[in-house]
Formats: sequence, C-alpha cells, structure tokens
Amino acid sequence: MTENIKFAVIGGGSWATAIAKMLCVNLSEISWYMRNEAAIEHIKTYKHNPNYLSSVEFDVKKLKLTSDINEAVGYADYIIFAIPSAFLDTELEKLTVSLQDKIIFSAIKGIVPETSLIVGEHFHVKYDIPYYNIGVITGPCHAEEVAMERLSYLTIACGDDEKAKIVAKNLSGNYIKTKITDDIIGTEYAAMLKNIYAIAAGMAHGLGYGDNFQSVLMSNGIREMKKFIKKVHKMKRNINDSAYLGDLLVTGYSVFSRNRMFGNMIGKGYTVKSAMMEMSMVAEGYYAAKSAYKLNQGYGAKTPIIDAVYAILYEGRDAKTIFKALTDQLD
Amino acid sequence: MTENIKFAVIGGGSWATAIAKMLCVNLSEISWYMRNEAAIEHIKTYKHNPNYLSSVEFDVKKLKLTSDINEAVGYADYIIFAIPSAFLDTELEKLTVSLQDKIIFSAIKGIVPETSLIVGEHFHVKYDIPYYNIGVITGPCHAEEVAMERLSYLTIACGDDEKAKIVAKNLSGNYIKTKITDDIIGTEYAAMLKNIYAIAAGMAHGLGYGDNFQSVLMSNGIREMKKFIKKVHKMKRNINDSAYLGDLLVTGYSVFSRNRMFGNMIGKGYTVKSAMMEMSMVAEGYYAAKSAYKLNQGYGAKTPIIDAVYAILYEGRDAKTIFKALTDQLD
Repeated sequence: MTENIKFAVIGGGSWATAIAKMLCVNLSEISWYMRNEAAIEHIKTYKHNPNYLSSVEFDVKKLKLTSDINEAVGYADYIIFAIPSAFLDTELEKLTVSLQDKIIFSAIKGIVPETSLIVGEHFHVKYDIPYYNIGVITGPCHAEEVAMERLSYLTIACGDDEKAKIVAKNLSGNYIKTKITDDIIGTEYAAMLKNIYAIAAGMAHGLGYGDNFQSVLMSNGIREMKKFIKKVHKMKRNINDSAYLGDLLVTGYSVFSRNRMFGNMIGKGYTVKSAMMEMSMVAEGYYAAKSAYKLNQGYGAKTPIIDAVYAILYEGRDAKTIFKALTDQLD
Repeated sequence: MTENIKFAVIGGGSWATAIAKMLCVNLSEISWYMRNEAAIEHIKTYKHNPNYLSSVEFDVKKLKLTSDINEAVGYADYIIFAIPSAFLDTELEKLTVSLQDKIIFSAIKGIVPETSLIVGEHFHVKYDIPYYNIGVITGPCHAEEVAMERLSYLTIACGDDEKAKIVAKNLSGNYIKTKITDDIIGTEYAAMLKNIYAIAAGMAHGLGYGDNFQSVLMSNGIREMKKFIKKVHKMKRNINDSAYLGDLLVTGYSVFSRNRMFGNMIGKGYTVKSAMMEMSMVAEGYYAAKSAYKLNQGYGAKTPIIDAVYAILYEGRDAKTIFKALTDQLD
C-alpha cells in the first residue's frame, strides 16, 4: 500500500532540494513544485538545481517538476512544504485544488507572518486541516550536509503515528536516520524558537563575547525554550532530544546559519534594515522573535533571551546595552 | 572576616594562571605554587607566566610564588588545586604540612588515576577531609578567554554554602560571574565526563561526520551524562544548567580542547599511543573514559558513547567500525 503513496515537495530552496533528494532514494516518482521556471528547465537539462545544493544530481526521470502548485497538490497524497514561512500564504492563495484529504507535512521552521501562527496551526486554522493530517519534519539538519550525504537524523512528528512512519520511511536512507514523535506542536515551536537563539548567538559573537559566554547562552536558551514550549503545549517531552536541543545546537553553533549571520551583523553595528538588505534574504528568526514575544505576553514565561532579541530588532534598542543587561539574567 | 582569608593556588598551567588572575582582582596577596622554578623567576621579573596565558600581566607584589607546595599549603586557608589529575597524587605525596582544617577546592577536571576517584572523593577518602571542607570550581570556562577578560560564568560547588560564597566572591569580577550550588558530586562528575564526550566529538570529526551528527552526539551526550550522574548521586539538579550542559558545549564545540583534538587524531587514524606522543600532553578524558566505563559496570547506566570511546581507547577497536555501530544507538 505504501508503494502507491504519492509525494509532492513544495519549494525550490536548499531544504526542499534536500528533501527531494531523500525521497528519490525511496520512490520512483515525486512531484516537485517551484516558482522558478528557469530553475525547472535547468534541472531537466543538467540534473541539478542551479541555485541550491547544486552538487546534488537527480535522476530526472523520477521528477515531475512543475511551476503550477495546483498540479503538485493535485498529484500527491503527502505534500511536504519547504518554503520560507513568509511566502507560504502567498503560495497557498494560488490553490484551486482542495487541501482536504491531503496529508500536509511542514519542513518550514517559522511563523506565518500574516497569522502569527506556526505552520501546522496555520493549516489547521485557516485551511481546516485536521491535526491528524498535519505533520512536521525537523532536524538537526543542514541541507548542505544532506547534499554531501553526511549522516543526519530527522524527527518526524504527527498526531497519527502511521503517517509519521510513512514519511519517516520514505525519507530514510543510508545517511538519513529518522525517529517519530507525536509532539507536533513542541517540535515545531522548537524549530521556530531556535532561530531566535541563533540570532542571539550571532549578536553575542558580533558584540565580542566569546565561547565561554556562547555556551552559557545556549544552556540558558534550552532552559528558556523548555519553559516556553511547556506553556504552549504541556506534555511529557525530553527537551534534550535531538529535535529540540540538537536542532538548537546545529543552528546556534553554525557559522552558516542565516539567523546567526543576521544576528552577527547587528552585533557588529548594522541596523536591522541594513542587515536585511545586505543579506538579501529573510532570516526566519526575525519574524519568530516578534511572534514569540507577543505570544509570550499571554503566557508569561520568563524568556530574557527572546525579550532581548525582540528589544533590539523591534524597539530599536542598542544591542550592546541590551546584552549587558541580559548577562545579569543568565546563569 | 573574609578580608583575612588566605588563598593558595596549586599549579602553573593555564587554568591555575587564570585563577590566580581572578583572585588578584579581589585579594591583596595570594600564594601560588608551581614546580617550575624558572617559570617563577620569569613571573617575578617579567610579570607574566612564560608558558601559559602569557598575555596576563600580574601585580607581582601580590604573589607569594613558591616551588615548595608545603609553603603554599601552610600559608593558606583555602587551597585551590588546578593541576592535571594525573599529577595530583605525586604532588600531594610531597606534603608534610597537614591538610586538616584546610578548605580544599578542586579546579581539576578529571579522575585521579591511582584511585579512580574524582578529586573531591580522593581528598575525602585518602586524606580524610570532610565533605564540608571540599569544593569544586567549574566552568564553562576556557582559561584563554579569562586571559582576554571575556565574560565567563563559573559555578562554585560546596556542601557548605558559606564556603562556596567566599570562593565565589573572591573569583568574581567585572568579567567573571559566579553562582553556587551544593551539587559537589554532580558538578565534578560532569566536568570529568564532558571530556569523554569531547573526545567522542573529536573522533566523529576526524572520521568525517559533520555538524548535523555532532549536534545529535551532544544531544545524546547530555542525556547520557544525566543518567550517569543520577546513578552516582541522585539529587534534584537541572542538567541543562551551565555547569553541566554549558561545560559540555564549551568543550565539545571547541577546536582548542585538548580532548577534542586527541579524539580528532584518533578519528583520523592515529593510534592512541602516537596521538598521545604527538600531543605531548595528557588529555584528561583518556583517564576519565576508563574510570567512567569501569564505574558504570557497577551502575549499569546506558552509556553507548562512553562505551564506544572506551572500546576505541582501551580495547584497540577500530574507530570507524565502533562509530558506525554507535550511530545506530543514538537518536
């Protein structure tokens, strides 16, 4: 039965490309939607994505590439979304094909700016998808290492175990290990929050703090994340599992993380606006900081790191001053 | 009253030098023992340790430097030991002055090879020092960053709060923040165990595993550490506090860590013996791996990472094969 299940990947970036690569190990055909028609033609001709993970060679016979999202959604039973959260709503508005009866997995790490919801909630609230048809694919996983076929561990979360297992099975391979969990809310919040801590790590680095402080920041970060997620969705979870702590570490300690790079520029004195222009891409943590901060006004968890990042990004506060005050709240 | 308390630092390495620097901020005089008489003369003349943290300039009027450990121990009320654990017993055998009524703080991260005990236990068992006179100074703290006066957080553990506070007060400064705890056993085991995980991190890197795997390894490492310490000394502690998780991260992610470097060489194919000769110094985690493994024969905690490091270091097993098997036990 599993044999006939059809998958679609939505997105043309590095994470979407990595997921397409993983699926192609196990499936004879997938649908792959991306907006960029030139990229599609390039893949068809040269067997690799010209813009992301271009070392990855695809068996193009397996790829049903399309620039029409309705074609991909219409084709698939399982749809994996891997586009920046800021573009999700724009893409979904193109849909004429129904999402009902589709199984939606989010590989997006962030908040949908229009609704301030995490992706799973967004699908549930705005598109009426039941939670048993919603899942999350989470790391710790840099797409670049998937391209290099370096061993990586994914956590697949879904309220329905069977669906999590199907996705896990089709992503697994000799360099991809998977585990499943039913903590769909917790894993998705962790994936979103870790980007805020990566921005904080970047800011600290940019301001001249060293490795000793960085480890204290991460140690406080995971404790803060635990408190926050517990307020959002209380259940038994080990915050030190790879999907939470591992994901925080791979992002917080990575010099390749966009979020860390964004924070680093601000720590070094760039304004928020100029850092954004310089990077010419969006750091997911920028939106996450606002949403997490606002959300926590209701929850009241003690989140000094999120508060500090918010104050610097959205209240125009001086990074050096805010971090000096933050250091007194950490231990 | 605190004013008249006398401190001695035992050791001439980088961590001892960092501690002497911290104490000199708060005290008008300290005793500082090191074996190397040439280094003592150098410090007296040039105001810096020629071999370690040589950028640190001392106010030499404050330093009672001595190459006689009995002079330092006789002078002080509080004695801070900061020498490699492998040399501790040799140094202690020189003592003619009694340690009774002395307050002993260990800044050593390791196991005393002769007794297979952590340092606090060693003083308690072999020298009959009561636990309320024994304490631990722990990081996350690279000595090199203390030299650069980069913000660092220390945890001071002692069964007797007042003594912990006195040590904390005398180490604190504008770039050193301190907190106290009564988990003297747990913090010391954490400081010892983290070196084994740092060796594992180095091995993984040497074998070609990437950042995705490294974060999974650290995430499994802290869970393993929690289980191990719980077996040794069960009490309420948050394993994500800086003294446990922070200390693991600063070591595991540091390219300067001797333990990580040692593991890296073995991962790259050096034999244990040649890696040791090449480094011309001892990686504390080498001894720790043996002690922790043996100790756990009695405890029976599930410690696949420690077991893997032990098998490679002491049973001559092939690092690549052992790590391949280890990856199946992590999640």
